[in-house]
Amino acid sequence: MKINDFKKFFDEKANEFLNHLDLTDILKESFIYSFFSGGKRLRPWIIYNIGRYYNIDIEKLLKIGFAAEIMHTASLIHDDLPAIDNSNFRRGNESNHKKFGEWRAILAGDLGFILPFKIFSTFNKDEAYALNNFFANTTLKLIEGETIDIALEKKIISPTKEKIEDMYIKKTSALFEFSFACSSLLINNNRDFEELKKAGKNFGIAFQIYDDIKDKYGNFNDIGKDLNNDENKYTFLKIFPIEEAKYYADILFDETLLILSKLKFNDFIEELKKIKVLIERK
Amino acid sequence: MKINDFKKFFDEKANEFLNHLDLTDILKESFIYSFFSGGKRLRPWIIYNIGRYYNIDIEKLLKIGFAAEIMHTASLIHDDLPAIDNSNFRRGNESNHKKFGEWRAILAGDLGFILPFKIFSTFNKDEAYALNNFFANTTLKLIEGETIDIALEKKIISPTKEKIEDMYIKKTSALFEFSFACSSLLINNNRDFEELKKAGKNFGIAFQIYDDIKDKYGNFNDIGKDLNNDENKYTFLKIFPIEEAKYYADILFDETLLILSKLKFNDFIEELKKIKVLIERK
Repeated sequence: MKINDFKKFFDEKANEFLNHLDLTDILKESFIYSFFSGGKRLRPWIIYNIGRYYNIDIEKLLKIGFAAEIMHTASLIHDDLPAIDNSNFRRGNESNHKKFGEWRAILAGDLGFILPFKIFSTFNKDEAYALNNFFANTTLKLIEGETIDIALEKKIISPTKEKIEDMYIKKTSALFEFSFACSSLLINNNRDFEELKKAGKNFGIAFQIYDDIKDKYGNFNDIGKDLNNDENKYTFLKIFPIEEAKYYADILFDETLLILSKLKFNDFIEELKKIKVLIERK
Repeated sequence: MKINDFKKFFDEKANEFLNHLDLTDILKESFIYSFFSGGKRLRPWIIYNIGRYYNIDIEKLLKIGFAAEIMHTASLIHDDLPAIDNSNFRRGNESNHKKFGEWRAILAGDLGFILPFKIFSTFNKDEAYALNNFFANTTLKLIEGETIDIALEKKIISPTKEKIEDMYIKKTSALFEFSFACSSLLINNNRDFEELKKAGKNFGIAFQIYDDIKDKYGNFNDIGKDLNNDENKYTFLKIFPIEEAKYYADILFDETLLILSKLKFNDFIEELKKIKVLIERK
């Protein structure tokens, strides 16, 4: 499915799901605001597309997609807080704490860190067990990656290529590894599981580098226009020329496609190539 | 086991467990600081004592205790943040954000919200499934209870007896319900599970009222000495005279003991009575 069609489908289902949660409106309102604040739904879209190759039920794939996107949203709400990235805007809208106050942003983020485990409890026992374990490990990496990111920025740790890549792998790749590999885990296909984790890891690093380039230079049609409003953030662009960083990202992106082509996920490969353009230019 | 003996035993085991976690030191240091910052270990102690009546393995009970205490610690770290309760001290020590900065307090709290699910993944499939579900629901209630607490304080919602009790039941009772009932859940004893949830719920409300009284008046030997540094917090003491609040708490505490006596947990009842004195006077 193309990403724009998927986004519409996913958002309708997610809206229904989130609005029916048995939770105080004070928290729900704040979380839902950020959840529907313009994300591309890239992670749920990957989960859906790969899951369909394994004939996994659509409703299940949507629920795993909710979990991944909810966690992603929670981490962004906390990242934007004044004590972390201090971002007043996210995707052109006010960030959660600007709109609802810091206290609601902290608690809405906390909510988003737990909801996925509630979602997984609606799966059968084997599936829930597998998803809970994979997702807990994923989220711990994500939190650790964010910690390394800020520690680099605050010069608590030294910026080496290895440390920055470690940060990318945890902060960005982890949730892509989960998105690429969760379906093969559900059907106990260990060989595909390991391959798809590799695909997700490479995709995540490439994605983060493209995103860093876009943040720093605008899009590739407009290199030189400095959009970077946070010079203290450590990225590959701090230690490599842009051409070298982009070359490395392209290699990793191609490795992702190679793994997917061995698995004969041909339509998905074509869509991913379009996504690459979207990530680079948006 | 008496609570002081248990605390020593538990803290040794927890120290080993937390120090061996595969996590960046930046996060571990901050979380461990708060974890070992003087808690009574009341929740793990309840889990341990009740679990032994069901002959559940000591190592398992300790691990469930780690999970409960980790979640409790995470929620306290976030509660203390400037945007929420703005507490500079916790149990006589600097709060996490005062000691390590807000960014590390936010991320250490996030870590503590996920770690329990990682711990449960070390149980067998049936146990992990049961614990994950019960714990996710428990934590969602806890976050919701904290939200209601702050919403009352900020006058976003009106303080009725029902609303304040709802806040107590979610913020405080939920984790006690889990602590009282998790062992009976593990062995699929549904009748005891429902009874022990009731016991935990009543104990949690009573505990919160005793705690509120202590916060406001110091200990019962010294009523009148106003220790309350946050006049905007809503508690039963805002709407009832202290005698009435204490009377209600005593009824709920006695109901807890009645349930436990039906289950013939006699030694535990004697220890709980001592705990009551400890909560009231400490």
